Amino acid sequence: MHTRAFVQRSRSYDSDEHERGAGACEWCEYALVITLATILLIGVSALTVFWVFFYREGYAWADDIPEKQFNLHPTLMVAGFITFSGFSVLLYRICRCFRRIYVKLLHAIFHALAFPCIVIGFLAVLDYHNKKGINNFYSLHSWIGFVAMGLFGLQYAVGFFSFLLLLICNKGTAGFRASLVPVHAAFGILTFVLGVAACLTGLTEKAIFTLGSDTYASMSQEAIVMNAIGMSVVAVAVLVLYTVRGTGGYRLRPAAQHPS
Amino acid sequence: MHTRAFVQRSRSYDSDEHERGAGACEWCEYALVITLATILLIGVSALTVFWVFFYREGYAWADDIPEKQFNLHPTLMVAGFITFSGFSVLLYRICRCFRRIYVKLLHAIFHALAFPCIVIGFLAVLDYHNKKGINNFYSLHSWIGFVAMGLFGLQYAVGFFSFLLLLICNKGTAGFRASLVPVHAAFGILTFVLGVAACLTGLTEKAIFTLGSDTYASMSQEAIVMNAIGMSVVAVAVLVLYTVRGTGGYRLRPAAQHPS
Repeated sequence: MHTRAFVQRSRSYDSDEHERGAGACEWCEYALVITLATILLIGVSALTVFWVFFYREGYAWADDIPEKQFNLHPTLMVAGFITFSGFSVLLYRICRCFRRIYVKLLHAIFHALAFPCIVIGFLAVLDYHNKKGINNFYSLHSWIGFVAMGLFGLQYAVGFFSFLLLLICNKGTAGFRASLVPVHAAFGILTFVLGVAACLTGLTEKAIFTLGSDTYASMSQEAIVMNAIGMSVVAVAVLVLYTVRGTGGYRLRPAAQHPS
Repeated sequence: MHTRAFVQRSRSYDSDEHERGAGACEWCEYALVITLATILLIGVSALTVFWVFFYREGYAWADDIPEKQFNLHPTLMVAGFITFSGFSVLLYRICRCFRRIYVKLLHAIFHALAFPCIVIGFLAVLDYHNKKGINNFYSLHSWIGFVAMGLFGLQYAVGFFSFLLLLICNKGTAGFRASLVPVHAAFGILTFVLGVAACLTGLTEKAIFTLGSDTYASMSQEAIVMNAIGMSVVAVAVLVLYTVRGTGGYRLRPAAQHPS
């Protein structure tokens, strides 16, 4: 009885969230989110590549030009943690009308694209630090990034094993897999949010280290471009968190309290 | 028919999320979250005050010691955007067994405590910049913080007017208020996440500006304390996002698909 009374009070708090079904409005929102997400997710990586070529002299992996090697780090990390991971998360949440196995494979493929980006992006900065004699893992950025990378690896291994490999024994593992879904989803969003935080703190570090505090404070062209990359990352985070929120339209949940 | 088929497929994706009721496990989780949240939310502000007194010579508002005036900025912003806002968001989501008006008032009071912190914290850094002849609003940190402050003010004004003042005409405004709840909640979480991002980028800036890149890279005591503040902010963000996720235990939603 106690639980039931609690539930009824709780229900009244957000009745408007529960009582709506899937309508035309939701399909408009759906189309808008897909369009905006595609523009932002590709845009943020494109802007990073533009910044590196236009202001930071492009890429390389050579002992005499470590700065060009460093440029691989922001580019690949933004591609891995933001663009590919963002697409992967959004596709899983949005493509509900596809067959489930295809959605899972798309989700795994996009994360498989993110994986080498993150590994090479990490090795690029590690090698750059060693070449320049700079300590590793001293900054808040690196601590956040380290946790994000660890979680990413763990999530990929657990996800691949549990949701793809265990399909060999489909029926026997159904209960285990179902119980793992919310854990995988929660840690996936956590990994994404940590990736975003790592990008923002990393961009702040890079802006101050490279431009110097005076040039940064004078709002040079490059400073504005770097801030714009950061704000695009924020916009992507907002869009992804909005899409994966539990009570959103894309779950197209039935109006459960009012069976029709 | 099309919508119905879509809904059934969708339901199978997250059946495990829908089909659980409120059990003992959820009450344990509930107690754990409250305890952890209290420790972290108070802890992050306490750690910031400790850092300022132990390493940054405390507080002041005087022309000859602008650095001490700057110290008000991180302390008050962490208090406003993290501690008070965090408590406010968590209390609203957790205290479902209280009368609704009391929960609303608690939510409004905690945000009312955050309000002067954010205003004075903002004026402190603005005045510090002007005294030192530093440009305002050039960094990614300031851009993110500016949006966060704007959203905070807007949310407070809209929330106070809609959910407290409009209670004068309770019945007439019920529909309008109900439709505003999800918008207010979504923008509230967005404001909180932007506040977190502003704190992390701000801490990164402060660490590099104050310690210098060499001392920061050598992992001095102060560098570790500053990184610890940042990681505590991350932990708070994780806890808050976990608690406000739509499919969480604290909504104690009925097992809607299986009427008992």
